[in-house]
Amino acid sequence: MTESTSGARVTIWNEYRHERNNPIVTKVYPEGIHNALKEGLASYGFEIGTATLDEPQHGLTDEVLESTDVLVWWGHMAHDDVDDTIVEKVHNRVLQGMGLIVLHSGHYAKIFKKLMGTSCALKWREADEKERLWVVNPSHPIAAGIGEYIELPQEEMYGEHFDIPAPDELVFVSWFEGGEVFRSGCAYYRGQGKVFYFRPGHESYPTYYNKDVLRVIANAVNWAAATGGATPAYGHVPVPLERIRGRE
Amino acid sequence: MTESTSGARVTIWNEYRHERNNPIVTKVYPEGIHNALKEGLASYGFEIGTATLDEPQHGLTDEVLESTDVLVWWGHMAHDDVDDTIVEKVHNRVLQGMGLIVLHSGHYAKIFKKLMGTSCALKWREADEKERLWVVNPSHPIAAGIGEYIELPQEEMYGEHFDIPAPDELVFVSWFEGGEVFRSGCAYYRGQGKVFYFRPGHESYPTYYNKDVLRVIANAVNWAAATGGATPAYGHVPVPLERIRGRE
Amino acid sequence: MTESTSGARVTIWNEYRHERNNPIVTKVYPEGIHNALKEGLASYGFEIGTATLDEPQHGLTDEVLESTDVLVWWGHMAHDDVDDTIVEKVHNRVLQGMGLIVLHSGHYAKIFKKLMGTSCALKWREADEKERLWVVNPSHPIAAGIGEYIELPQEEMYGEHFDIPAPDELVFVSWFEGGEVFRSGCAYYRGQGKVFYFRPGHESYPTYYNKDVLRVIANAVNWAAATGGATPAYGHVPVPLERIRGRE
Amino acid sequence: MTESTSGARVTIWNEYRHERNNPIVTKVYPEGIHNALKEGLASYGFEIGTATLDEPQHGLTDEVLESTDVLVWWGHMAHDDVDDTIVEKVHNRVLQGMGLIVLHSGHYAKIFKKLMGTSCALKWREADEKERLWVVNPSHPIAAGIGEYIELPQEEMYGEHFDIPAPDELVFVSWFEGGEVFRSGCAYYRGQGKVFYFRPGHESYPTYYNKDVLRVIANAVNWAAATGGATPAYGHVPVPLERIRGRE
Repeated sequence: MTESTSGARVTIWNEYRHERNNPIVTKVYPEGIHNALKEGLASYGFEIGTATLDEPQHGLTDEVLESTDVLVWWGHMAHDDVDDTIVEKVHNRVLQGMGLIVLHSGHYAKIFKKLMGTSCALKWREADEKERLWVVNPSHPIAAGIGEYIELPQEEMYGEHFDIPAPDELVFVSWFEGGEVFRSGCAYYRGQGKVFYFRPGHESYPTYYNKDVLRVIANAVNWAAATGGATPAYGHVPVPLERIRGRE
Repeated sequence: MTESTSGARVTIWNEYRHERNNPIVTKVYPEGIHNALKEGLASYGFEIGTATLDEPQHGLTDEVLESTDVLVWWGHMAHDDVDDTIVEKVHNRVLQGMGLIVLHSGHYAKIFKKLMGTSCALKWREADEKERLWVVNPSHPIAAGIGEYIELPQEEMYGEHFDIPAPDELVFVSWFEGGEVFRSGCAYYRGQGKVFYFRPGHESYPTYYNKDVLRVIANAVNWAAATGGATPAYGHVPVPLERIRGRE
Repeated sequence: MTESTSGARVTIWNEYRHERNNPIVTKVYPEGIHNALKEGLASYGFEIGTATLDEPQHGLTDEVLESTDVLVWWGHMAHDDVDDTIVEKVHNRVLQGMGLIVLHSGHYAKIFKKLMGTSCALKWREADEKERLWVVNPSHPIAAGIGEYIELPQEEMYGEHFDIPAPDELVFVSWFEGGEVFRSGCAYYRGQGKVFYFRPGHESYPTYYNKDVLRVIANAVNWAAATGGATPAYGHVPVPLERIRGRE
Repeated sequence: MTESTSGARVTIWNEYRHERNNPIVTKVYPEGIHNALKEGLASYGFEIGTATLDEPQHGLTDEVLESTDVLVWWGHMAHDDVDDTIVEKVHNRVLQGMGLIVLHSGHYAKIFKKLMGTSCALKWREADEKERLWVVNPSHPIAAGIGEYIELPQEEMYGEHFDIPAPDELVFVSWFEGGEVFRSGCAYYRGQGKVFYFRPGHESYPTYYNKDVLRVIANAVNWAAATGGATPAYGHVPVPLERIRGRE
């Protein structure tokens, strides 16, 4: 059976502030998280572009959004700097069918909070802890090519309660050394689009060079890129010519 | 086994514009939809108050919100007139544990759209059509005391695609004469709160005098009023005294 | 973006009794439902084999099962004639990763009831009724290439309550002329496998020549064929060398 | 708002072999797990009876089953000794509306496997490990009166992958010292009944004296005891007097 690759057009959006301001982070991601991801995903047959917060319109022009099948999002310290008009456009694109992969601290991104409708709050701790992301749905295509768990020697802890709607499909649950658990791979269907939240990726750890993490992101892109059904029509529907009592 | 009644403190919020402006509607609900519901729910042991759009702060003062266990919401032609600050407060109360029952055209209410994160769009038609609300989860407490379906001789048709997240629990699916179906009883867990969307209730039909419809609303109030677990703590968690490698 | 085809190895299992015993059915499916489906799916790039009830081991030998990515199942009047040992093997294969598409009256097949754990009972009526299968999740890949609904001029009615677990993903809900609704496209993750129940296909109607019905079955095959994660290990796990208090 | 108590008629079924054969276990549960649970649940207003494996018909006579609102089940080393006819009766009762709470090693009970349709396999280890059961749905009534997590100083580890269907409602996720996670509080709607799987309770630890564990079981009993809608009718439905084209 052939391996499916979607050839999706992917835009990787990154805040790109830490990498330019914090020497520790610059060392880990000298070209920025967006370019590390772009390189890490190079072998998957996607058409990858990048966009960052400080570009005009955050790089998310109408043209870019219209030609993006899946948007990958990393943000952390400047969620408030994202323009509300752009958030609105991204939101509409997702409901129209664009996939969205939200990474790590993107749980507090305006676009993720808008789509989830909850606070998206969680517990956190930076203590170089080991994380194990256990696969809880081995049938799910987002888990393809992954073993029973992914082990990351050092990550920032995120712990429950994670204030999100129950995922339509829960794929990963994480274990942290310090005693916490976290629903770390969460898939949602929203409108004609698909959203996947994936936890790992604190900026000071080389997480986005991990081949399992990259595999999951690639799987998520393929999952989110899959075409669904026709765009529904909404609004007033005329009286049908049949089937209404007394009006046939 | 004893029947459970929650004695919940209920606030019924109603737009209350149609009943005062449209003689057809005034005839059906002379005291307003909110008072019809209040009377209809009188036998269920709730503590019921009402609030309407044109009251100061839409009747949803901090005091009212803090002392409301379940908020019932009916709105249609003036969703935009609902103050964003009030919407924000209601949203916070839901995440803190207040139940929310959204009726009929409330699918376009700001609070419902905010909680759902989708457009909440649908198809509609006013043609005095028969509606059958089929119970698809006979195990669910919101269906208590209801038969296999509720039949309403005349209602406004709402049809799929209904742009909402897949309900955590789908309780009713409606059939309409004209050929449409609609997920008409949809339950969600959001934060510490619970939300139930219930479709029937076009203002020109006496739907809120129907004892089965009232039973479902009462069941939904009891379901949404049920207490859950402790309020989670969010934010930074200190390094635990044990279990971190090299720090014991 | 490229259209994904899985090249899956598909086995179409058919009871094949009606077509040989009932002239009305023979007329609709002269080569049997299995061959009509095989022809109808010919353009989708699958490797298709067939198997029927009255073949030795119902055509589901260990060799066939081991080399099947997705099994499609149609049965109606002879569910009891299916050997329990074969059912057991099919069940194991699904939990190991084989996809399963169950059609129409297959809701009472031993394998479907075993996987669902419920009675799988429903209401039915043969009255040449029109059926509309509405897409309720336009984001779902099983709805790819389909419009807002599929209309079948004549089908056997199946109505709620359909005693199944709530689908992990509900894709279609049907409307019938006579007043019933039915959850007609239901997707489940079970073990490492995926199951899709699809309602249409009464033996006396030419349903399996309908291009939309065939498209959904093909979509479902691709969905069910997708590889997931590694096969989990179960059972006793030795004490880890670290992280157990007092044993490091 | 009044606290809801269902006054449910509860039958606690226990294998009751370990307590009589293993001195370590006898010490922890001298009267048997069933009586420890009965005492522990004494303040919740239930009508509690017990039944054990070695009683005639395992204590689950037709009379007992008909008058049981919620059945609690603990079994471990003798699942095979449970009579298939009794399993069938329990299964039917659940589909008719009896609640079922399955504890700990009951994951391999015939009745649980039958209802789930999967292998229900998992990983395990006996190493006196600490367990933390985190609440992942603080809105759920099964979490009522519980803090952010329940900590058990010593329990037997159960780890993912736990081969069950995705719970309709996931309430608890456990953390274990040794590196594993486990979906430890799983709620399902099946037919007219409700099933809750709750992990803790290895026979050699005093888990069933823990007041939080007892609180969860009591909450689960109330949740599972709640009445739903009318018993659906299944089977052939006559042609309706209206709404069929050409037959009005």
